[in-house]
Parts: sequence; structure tokens; C-alpha cells
Amino acid sequence: MKDCLFCKMIAGEIPVQKVYEDEHFLAFLDIHPVNIGHTLVIPKVHSANLYDTTDETLSLLAPVIKKLAIAIKKGVSANGINIEMNNEASAGQIIFHTHIHVIPRFSSDGFKHWHGAREYRDGEMAEIEKKVKMHL
Amino acid sequence: MKDCLFCKMIAGEIPVQKVYEDEHFLAFLDIHPVNIGHTLVIPKVHSANLYDTTDETLSLLAPVIKKLAIAIKKGVSANGINIEMNNEASAGQIIFHTHIHVIPRFSSDGFKHWHGAREYRDGEMAEIEKKVKMHL
Repeated sequence: MKDCLFCKMIAGEIPVQKVYEDEHFLAFLDIHPVNIGHTLVIPKVHSANLYDTTDETLSLLAPVIKKLAIAIKKGVSANGINIEMNNEASAGQIIFHTHIHVIPRFSSDGFKHWHGAREYRDGEMAEIEKKVKMHL
Repeated sequence: MKDCLFCKMIAGEIPVQKVYEDEHFLAFLDIHPVNIGHTLVIPKVHSANLYDTTDETLSLLAPVIKKLAIAIKKGVSANGINIEMNNEASAGQIIFHTHIHVIPRFSSDGFKHWHGAREYRDGEMAEIEKKVKMHL
């Protein structure tokens, strides 16, 4: 797509530190990494984020992420791997071309997740379940 | 697997607030949510994390995550969605049965990612690329 940074990388118009490429996907080092080896995996066909990526692309993508996660972990001798995908600005998405973060983690890196930031009040879980199921 | 909390949930031995179930996967509300609607998606066949989940399971899983992300976003009127997967303790994994977090985000929730926590020194990106490619 015109004016899309990642489409330009796919087209070779902007250089990347490429770690993997196949017919459908490109993977390269994030230039502002959380930890060394932090890699972005992108589909070559433009989509904005998860919502408009085809099921076919997603089915091909998931095993590629696994393969990269294992290779990146070994390559930088990490202790674990986070897979992250930010969809829309309020979830931290900055480039509006679908991309998945593969982030090596080290026991000593000190990053903390937001887990358990909120608690449910009585009956709220059942309400939420109902609201989600309305859209499935 | 014996003594696996999520396997017990799949077997119906521990109750969950179920939002989705099919032949291969179960999705339920996280009892310690980041935001309301925070959902965990798990394969019914036990695996510890991404590394030992079969490609076939991953290919079936990815479109289910998309479907749930869209429904959860609508269900709780969120502004965005994070998809997250923590592999191994140092990446924040607590239950060692493969699970993917689908986390609704709100423009006002104030959570921050770790993006750009590290910078590369000259030549380091090329070294990392080489090290990762050795394992691909």
C-alpha cells in the first residue's frame, strides 16, 4: 500500500535487517527493541491489523512465528519468548500494517506484565460472557 | 495432563466462564483480568507452550483468535485488542499449558508497553541476524 512503511520494506525500498523471508512473510529486527533479537513478522499482503488479515494468511503465519520464536531464542540465548500483537492505536499499534512481535526475554530483564490489573465484581463475568457471545 | 489446571478446565473438573468452545479449543475469561473481557484461548490437546504446539494446531488456532478478538472488542466496546503469549517463566508464563491472551484495551486504560527499551550498538543487528539464521 502506498505510504505504508512496511510495504516499502517488503518492496525493498527501505532496508531491513532481515532474519527470514518466504513467499508470504518477512521477518526483520525491530530497530527499537525491547531486548536484542526483538523481531517483527509481517505478511506481504497489506492488512491493517488482525481484524482484516485473512484466515488463510493467519493459518500460514502461526507456524512461521513458532519457527522464528525457537530460532530467535537459540540465537540470542534467551530464557523465554513473548509473542505480542497490538491492534489499533489504543493497544499500542504504531504502524498500521499487520505485524507480530517476537520478543526474547531474559530472566534478569525486569519487565513486568499488567496481569491482574482489574478484578471482576459479583456477576460481572457472566454479563461479559453474554456480551461477547452475542458477537460470535 | 494430570495436575494441569487447564486440562482440568477442559475436562469440566474446574468451572470456567466459557466464551467459546469448538472441537480443538476452549476460550474463557481470565479471573485476574488486565481489563474486563480479558480472555484465554487454549488448545484442548496439552502442550506446554508455543514451542511444542503442533503446526496443525497453530494453523487452526490463529483464525479462532481473530474471531474472538473481534467479538470481545464488540462485546466490551473496547478501542483495541492486544494478543499476547508468554512462553516460559521468564516471559511471564504461569500455567504451563499453551494459552493465548486476548486483552481488550481502552484509550483511557493507561497501560504502557516496553517498546524501545534497548538500543543496538553499531554492527550488533547484523550479528544478531546471523545468530538467528543459524537456527532457521
